[in-house]
Amino acid sequence: MTGKKKVYLALIHYPVYNKTGQVITSAVTNLDLHDIARAARTYGVRCFYVVTPLEDQRELAKRIVSHWIHGGGARYNPDRRTALQLVRIVSSMEEVLEDISENGQDRPITVSTDARPHTNNITFAGLSKILVSGQCLLLMFGTAWGLTKQSVEAADYALAPITGGTDYNHLSVRSAVSIILDRLLGTGH
Amino acid sequence: MTGKKKVYLALIHYPVYNKTGQVITSAVTNLDLHDIARAARTYGVRCFYVVTPLEDQRELAKRIVSHWIHGGGARYNPDRRTALQLVRIVSSMEEVLEDISENGQDRPITVSTDARPHTNNITFAGLSKILVSGQCLLLMFGTAWGLTKQSVEAADYALAPITGGTDYNHLSVRSAVSIILDRLLGTGH
Repeated sequence: MTGKKKVYLALIHYPVYNKTGQVITSAVTNLDLHDIARAARTYGVRCFYVVTPLEDQRELAKRIVSHWIHGGGARYNPDRRTALQLVRIVSSMEEVLEDISENGQDRPITVSTDARPHTNNITFAGLSKILVSGQCLLLMFGTAWGLTKQSVEAADYALAPITGGTDYNHLSVRSAVSIILDRLLGTGH
Repeated sequence: MTGKKKVYLALIHYPVYNKTGQVITSAVTNLDLHDIARAARTYGVRCFYVVTPLEDQRELAKRIVSHWIHGGGARYNPDRRTALQLVRIVSSMEEVLEDISENGQDRPITVSTDARPHTNNITFAGLSKILVSGQCLLLMFGTAWGLTKQSVEAADYALAPITGGTDYNHLSVRSAVSIILDRLLGTGH
């Protein structure tokens, strides 16, 4: 755990955009679960929620995670087990908020992430201040071509886009999660 | 490009450790190429070298990259094309250094990365100073269970391990590259 900093993650598979801007439900990706769980564990994230309304996709995600927590994977790679134990597979953002509440936390401040700017943007420095004050954050990441505009703007804040000094901003969600956790929770910069 | 900051990346498939500490040649992974190329492009990296001594693995990597630069992938996703154009597939670190030299750069300062501490460690702040002074850096990343101790310590410097405020440091190479580029080249922290 990173002191009193309370961060939860949600990886959202609906509603997100596809390449042409249509609203879709994306498929759960094995490597998203692994890479994001490992980053979450490294930075002391409390829980990593995988959110999809599709029951068969939730079952698939549960089977993957179970392999690494209880199955052959747990013996093959105990470090991976420690990371994947952070994963909770749920059907909606409402379920995420209920689960956090049942774990005795106040309603978290919801923070969406997007490569595009939005009216409810907050800077990394602004969000760090909130985090240091002891408030609980729920960071929301979209899969495919990103969270819908409505989801981004329905959150309490939208985190400012990551900038790397160029006009290109097409990071994978795995990279974006890693960088955002490091900016908010990393040490030794 | 990020001003005058000159950074090259090398993703190394030999010599690296496997899970039990044996020295192996790891397989090229499709998603490493995509995720790391996208991060490299976002942060203005000059070239992303994929290094493997195995000819069939180099051919495989070339076919993947070609699909996204010249084939169907280029039409399907031009942003991916822009990222994968940074990739150069080579057989050894010597070839990396020759290629940088042929592009008119001085010999770069070589910087290895590892989750373990080493005698030639440099901090992120120390490396940033070198970068800002206009010197050219070559960042070396190991696949599988990481670069061998000899490779790490043969570099001019070994970058200090990424720390996230916990005792866990098992990030994927995709996450590690993203975080290190952001610490050295990111803006808006």
